[in-house]
Amino acid sequence: MNNKALDGKTVIVRLEIESGTNFSSVVSAIEAAGGDVIAIDVIQTGKGSTTRDLTVKVKDTGTTERLGKSLGLLRGIRVINTSDRTFLLHLGGKITIQPKTPIQNRDDLSRVYTPEVARVCTAIYEDPSKAFSLTIKRNTVAVVSDGSAVLGLGNIGPEAAMPVMEGKAMLFKQFADVDAFPICLDTQDTEAIIAVVKAIAPGFGGINLEDISSPRCFEIEERLREELNIPVFHDDQHGTAVVLYAGLINALRLTGKRIEDARIVVCGIGAAGTACTKMLIAGGARNVLGVDRDGILTADREYAHPMWNWYAANTNPERMTGGLSDALRGADVFIGLSAGGILKREMVLTMNEQPIVFAMANPDPEIRPEDAEDIVAVIATGRSDFPNQINNVLCFPGIFRGALDCRAVTINEEMKLAAAEAIASTVGEDELSRSYIIPSVFNTKVVEEVRRRVVQAARDSGVARRNPKE
Amino acid sequence: MNNKALDGKTVIVRLEIESGTNFSSVVSAIEAAGGDVIAIDVIQTGKGSTTRDLTVKVKDTGTTERLGKSLGLLRGIRVINTSDRTFLLHLGGKITIQPKTPIQNRDDLSRVYTPEVARVCTAIYEDPSKAFSLTIKRNTVAVVSDGSAVLGLGNIGPEAAMPVMEGKAMLFKQFADVDAFPICLDTQDTEAIIAVVKAIAPGFGGINLEDISSPRCFEIEERLREELNIPVFHDDQHGTAVVLYAGLINALRLTGKRIEDARIVVCGIGAAGTACTKMLIAGGARNVLGVDRDGILTADREYAHPMWNWYAANTNPERMTGGLSDALRGADVFIGLSAGGILKREMVLTMNEQPIVFAMANPDPEIRPEDAEDIVAVIATGRSDFPNQINNVLCFPGIFRGALDCRAVTINEEMKLAAAEAIASTVGEDELSRSYIIPSVFNTKVVEEVRRRVVQAARDSGVARRNPKE
Repeated sequence: MNNKALDGKTVIVRLEIESGTNFSSVVSAIEAAGGDVIAIDVIQTGKGSTTRDLTVKVKDTGTTERLGKSLGLLRGIRVINTSDRTFLLHLGGKITIQPKTPIQNRDDLSRVYTPEVARVCTAIYEDPSKAFSLTIKRNTVAVVSDGSAVLGLGNIGPEAAMPVMEGKAMLFKQFADVDAFPICLDTQDTEAIIAVVKAIAPGFGGINLEDISSPRCFEIEERLREELNIPVFHDDQHGTAVVLYAGLINALRLTGKRIEDARIVVCGIGAAGTACTKMLIAGGARNVLGVDRDGILTADREYAHPMWNWYAANTNPERMTGGLSDALRGADVFIGLSAGGILKREMVLTMNEQPIVFAMANPDPEIRPEDAEDIVAVIATGRSDFPNQINNVLCFPGIFRGALDCRAVTINEEMKLAAAEAIASTVGEDELSRSYIIPSVFNTKVVEEVRRRVVQAARDSGVARRNPKE
Repeated sequence: MNNKALDGKTVIVRLEIESGTNFSSVVSAIEAAGGDVIAIDVIQTGKGSTTRDLTVKVKDTGTTERLGKSLGLLRGIRVINTSDRTFLLHLGGKITIQPKTPIQNRDDLSRVYTPEVARVCTAIYEDPSKAFSLTIKRNTVAVVSDGSAVLGLGNIGPEAAMPVMEGKAMLFKQFADVDAFPICLDTQDTEAIIAVVKAIAPGFGGINLEDISSPRCFEIEERLREELNIPVFHDDQHGTAVVLYAGLINALRLTGKRIEDARIVVCGIGAAGTACTKMLIAGGARNVLGVDRDGILTADREYAHPMWNWYAANTNPERMTGGLSDALRGADVFIGLSAGGILKREMVLTMNEQPIVFAMANPDPEIRPEDAEDIVAVIATGRSDFPNQINNVLCFPGIFRGALDCRAVTINEEMKLAAAEAIASTVGEDELSRSYIIPSVFNTKVVEEVRRRVVQAARDSGVARRNPKE
């Protein structure tokens, strides 16, 4: 866990203070520990004591710990609990389920439930496609995870994965008005996961797979895509690929290069690296090299990891061999989905003119922007504290919005390319610069533009079941 | 499907009317068909035509059909669609998922999603019980059905069952502020259903099983109760049993009879009949008889249906034999969960003094109240258009509210008895009468009282993990 997240944050300390206790001693103790009291709320006043919430600005977790200790030593003071704002925001979970209309009387009750609901059920039974108009299927996506590869935390299991999936559900709603519900699974067996998702699918209009570890994620997604007639989208793979490709479109635009001519080195051939590569090839790239622990992947070798064999067979047309530095010599683009610090300045210096670097390892990029910005044309990372953040939030809300609106049976390559082009297009010719190749996640044009192009691509490629109004 | 549900309802007819068409001809046609135009909304006006929604009061579905036909014959008029209010209420489904707080800026985003959410995930990983405070598990129930026994409609499958489960979710929220989410399963295999529900359980604080056919519902519930550490409650069985028992408590109170002395005949030994019988025995009943197609169930015989063998072994202490009329001679209580019209007035006349009749078959009770009210002490049905409606809505919101609030590991017999007593207690001594033995579903005291007693019973029986504040 990265404790830096607490840097310069606030904590809320709930204290029970016996009557007659000098409150200034509390404030002094907090200041001595390095905290700064910025608000006081009285929660309860009783005969013998009062309960107060103190909002305290702290520099780091050390401050919080010192603070707890020194307050605990004061006479007449009991620390009930210490919560920071992030934890408070998570209390009781972050989403809620609301009826769209209130049930105020027996007439309402008889319409939304027995006996009248039976007519709606019968209509769907007679024509199952009506589930899309008469149930939440129209607008609802399951956010499914087995908790095996959550953020940078790894295999933390289903309960601990819930806060991430709830957060994702919030983003779906906030950015694209999609109703998303988190489903965290108490199994990590491939066949079991496939069976569960198929079983729960009738009520959903789409499935967003999330934080499922490689290589299981490939088979799970592939099988579900084949066996379900609603979109199934593994965001860690395709969301990343779409946004990366959007960034690359604009980086190439800025440097005047063509994807067909560029040599692109992908470093870190896991789920996301593979999906990015497929997207680049679909976008026209002809010379992609993959690099992982064994060096450049080449068709001349046999790999234990089945995906690496697929990768070697479908990339590296010149059958180059060697390591990352060999791959990069003369290359136009570096795409990192690997580990912090592995891209060296010396390697960048050997790249072709106007090198483009996507250093997307989290939280530490493959090379820090300050160590490369003077020698690259463009650098993008996964972080919000540098320019050009490659963030999946730019893709998944709009791509599902579009897929749901046209009742797409799937999210295909055409729709992903369209989404990437839509994201890229929101950066105007006059705005495009080396520090602005990708829009902000709060750019409201993005979802609408992604939706529009995704619907068009779904219709053009024959996977739309409906032509939505604009 | 019961088309009576449309009686005296309104339909909304959307018409495209060519410019120059005489609108009075439309109104005349509707009136001639027996409809009454009560509102007109202009939806769109174009050069060549306008689109209007006409809200029309109709007497029955016949009117609606005649109306569609005669409008279709008019020149310059196109009927785009005809929707009644019930269908309109279901458009796009009846529930929505909302973030509890908006994400307005990058700071919000970093707290509810990466990077700060990682600290919350880690806290749950280190102490899984924190899932109850830091995720939606605290307040969220899955409403699970396989669509095999939906209302009176039978096996209509998962998509068609969704409107009922969404309706149930609305009731959970409206009556008890429980977040409930519908999960309709594309399998009717017992083992598969058990596996799916176990797999999706981590994000839920309780499981409400619904409309799953007998006998599978018994094994599914029993196994899930054993294998999960959150409450699992098959509402068709136990909700009905709790509310029936609440009604019986008050009917006995009114007639001055004791449950220990009463002979109780249960007619219809399916899931609900069995659950009601178990509840009655737990409540102190000593002389219960079950009657089904084969007559009175008795331990002297062997039955194909395993539940009937359990039933025969645990009821009918006098080993009575014969049919329903034999069972009823001298009986104090009739409980019907069978079929319309099977209880005859002549049979009621042979019952003990002050007979109590629960005729709960839907939509047609075992005997209509008007055919028995002069010869019974009390009659209750499942219908809202007669007094004394036995309606599950009185039970499930409050019992889950209580179970969630005290983080009960299960809903046990003690909690169900407490819920029944709570429901019965909301009818005051001064209010109790033969036409008021059970409160209205809109009585706001019910949920709070059920919650309070259920929490107490959970604590007393050692299944509560937490002592909630009042």
